Amino acid sequence: MTDRFQFTLNATDGAARTGVIDTPRGQIRTPAFMPVGTAATVKAMMPESVRETGADILLGNTYHLMLRPGAERVDRLGGLHRFMNWDRPILTDSGGFQVMSLASLRKLTEEGVTFASHIDGSKHVLTPERSMEIQRLLGSDIVMAFDECPALPASEEEVANSMRLSMRWAQRSRDAFGDRPGHALFGIMQGGVTRDLREESAKALTGIGFDGYAVGGLAVGEGQEAMFGVLDYAPGFLPQDKPRYLMGVGKPDDIVGAVQRGIDMMDCVLPSRSGRTGQAWTRRGQVNIKNARHQDDPRPLDENCTCPACRSYSRGYLHHVFRAGEMISGMLLTWHNLHYYQELMAGLRAAIAEGRLDGFVADFHAARAEGDIEPLA
Amino acid sequence: MTDRFQFTLNATDGAARTGVIDTPRGQIRTPAFMPVGTAATVKAMMPESVRETGADILLGNTYHLMLRPGAERVDRLGGLHRFMNWDRPILTDSGGFQVMSLASLRKLTEEGVTFASHIDGSKHVLTPERSMEIQRLLGSDIVMAFDECPALPASEEEVANSMRLSMRWAQRSRDAFGDRPGHALFGIMQGGVTRDLREESAKALTGIGFDGYAVGGLAVGEGQEAMFGVLDYAPGFLPQDKPRYLMGVGKPDDIVGAVQRGIDMMDCVLPSRSGRTGQAWTRRGQVNIKNARHQDDPRPLDENCTCPACRSYSRGYLHHVFRAGEMISGMLLTWHNLHYYQELMAGLRAAIAEGRLDGFVADFHAARAEGDIEPLA
Repeated sequence: MTDRFQFTLNATDGAARTGVIDTPRGQIRTPAFMPVGTAATVKAMMPESVRETGADILLGNTYHLMLRPGAERVDRLGGLHRFMNWDRPILTDSGGFQVMSLASLRKLTEEGVTFASHIDGSKHVLTPERSMEIQRLLGSDIVMAFDECPALPASEEEVANSMRLSMRWAQRSRDAFGDRPGHALFGIMQGGVTRDLREESAKALTGIGFDGYAVGGLAVGEGQEAMFGVLDYAPGFLPQDKPRYLMGVGKPDDIVGAVQRGIDMMDCVLPSRSGRTGQAWTRRGQVNIKNARHQDDPRPLDENCTCPACRSYSRGYLHHVFRAGEMISGMLLTWHNLHYYQELMAGLRAAIAEGRLDGFVADFHAARAEGDIEPLA
Repeated sequence: MTDRFQFTLNATDGAARTGVIDTPRGQIRTPAFMPVGTAATVKAMMPESVRETGADILLGNTYHLMLRPGAERVDRLGGLHRFMNWDRPILTDSGGFQVMSLASLRKLTEEGVTFASHIDGSKHVLTPERSMEIQRLLGSDIVMAFDECPALPASEEEVANSMRLSMRWAQRSRDAFGDRPGHALFGIMQGGVTRDLREESAKALTGIGFDGYAVGGLAVGEGQEAMFGVLDYAPGFLPQDKPRYLMGVGKPDDIVGAVQRGIDMMDCVLPSRSGRTGQAWTRRGQVNIKNARHQDDPRPLDENCTCPACRSYSRGYLHHVFRAGEMISGMLLTWHNLHYYQELMAGLRAAIAEGRLDGFVADFHAARAEGDIEPLA
């Protein structure tokens, strides 16, 4: 254990990196996938089970938690870790992205953003200073700078203006965060798909100085090709010795491509959300358990998977409980999906450490190209 | 382990009894509470967690399982135990009660009952013979005879006619069940709240001969006083050396009163259903976690309880996740409720074994009279 936040890079393979982030609450092995616990719970999962999948760190959403139950209340109840029974690291986003995507009656000024809650319409204000305060009250281990992400489509000028506002907010976030040993503050690079803007943003952030750097403004509808296009150069603008976090990504092949391009951390609701809608992710790609072809199938989702859903339940059962609307459907499929994601990350880490990432990625794509197992005759 | 179904009475205290039912799939300690796994899942629970609460046996619903996924399908997938990943004993009801309470377009004849599925309107037939077949396909360890339970209010004549039909169906169930070593068939006493009819029903059943006897037609809206009135005499009409099962009961004080009157087994959806609607059962009575008074409360539901919800979560958290509609709310409260129920059963068994049931029951009522803990100032 350490009382400091510290990133150690252990190996690289091409642009890809593997290492460890030491924090007072435990180690984060990178590349890391962070399950999303939006409202102080990873939906359908007990936190012990999330840990069993291999997750080292969770993500919490500042926007949701500030509205319900409220950051001051979480603080009074002992902080987010105690509140949700997760004693390992937690990263909280800044609230900026969710305000833009979920809240209504938004008003953006240099100072910050005012908005109406999507839950009850109540009025709220988020500024860099308030975002830092909320994330401190939550007890977040990795705090994200408050940023603005323009809705797509946006002109290059809009993207540039938004990025520069985010950079001024990054400085205010840094100032408001202060000195909190054992806690980290990450800056967020913006600039859309424009290389010059990405470079300008990276320079602004590294000039301020952060404990880690996120690549923001991707995975917002631009498509995988455009995202990989940015990731071909953007991580290179960031310091080698700090973790790089790609926000809101993604599907398994997005994750693999991002890791190949030098990303260390990712988060996404996809594995848990898919689990609640009958979608399973396996090494052979996506399986829709709703499909009637599974109803008499005694085989597990993936005979090579060691998660509880695959160890103990048939596709026939998983199909049945999904159709019957039973909670165990979401519980088992979410567990499977999170297990698969963490297994993928472990595979990526090992491959990078052993200098065989290209082979690992080729195998990954070959298994997906095979597709799901054939239906029973 | 045994290859037979066998009940051993170990001790009595007044009318109350404690013992063990040995089955090839494991022991059932009595008095036993059976959580309900209607559609091949105890809602919101993993089966391993149900076992952790101390449950020795689950109940499955023939009516639901015959409609979805279908008994033949469960059989093809290895039987209900394997299907739902529960290798301990399972009792299945006969379907009769649920047809009456859930299905539409019912038509009752001497032969059986035709009805339309509440799921998709499809037509189905249940007879004593088909009920035995379905329960065999499911692989049930304790099979219930097919019976009819008249809707209340019913005249004494209607109750008598219905009871006599159920007794003829009991004989047909016995004949259709045949000889299945290691599996048990229970008869179901009917007769409403009329002592003579209960006695007539018991005589008919014991004349046929069953491995256990249920007291049916109670907990259907007659009220606790009327139910206890029947239980003051009805168990005495049944053989001492066979288990006695009170169907569909109940609240904790119903359970205590039934055990005092000589009941060995019970089942009820209440602990799991309550758990999904924000209702917790504790030794101090019922707690409504929805209530705003819990929102800042750092204390557990019950500081003496060792379930996961009480060990690791505050009332403030449980309130939050209920209000936010998070699945973990139902998961934690169901676990707590089932844990509390099983702890109550363990307490009853120990008290009977040690001849101190009266003291146990007095303490039980005293704790409930105290009520839930005071709100924080």
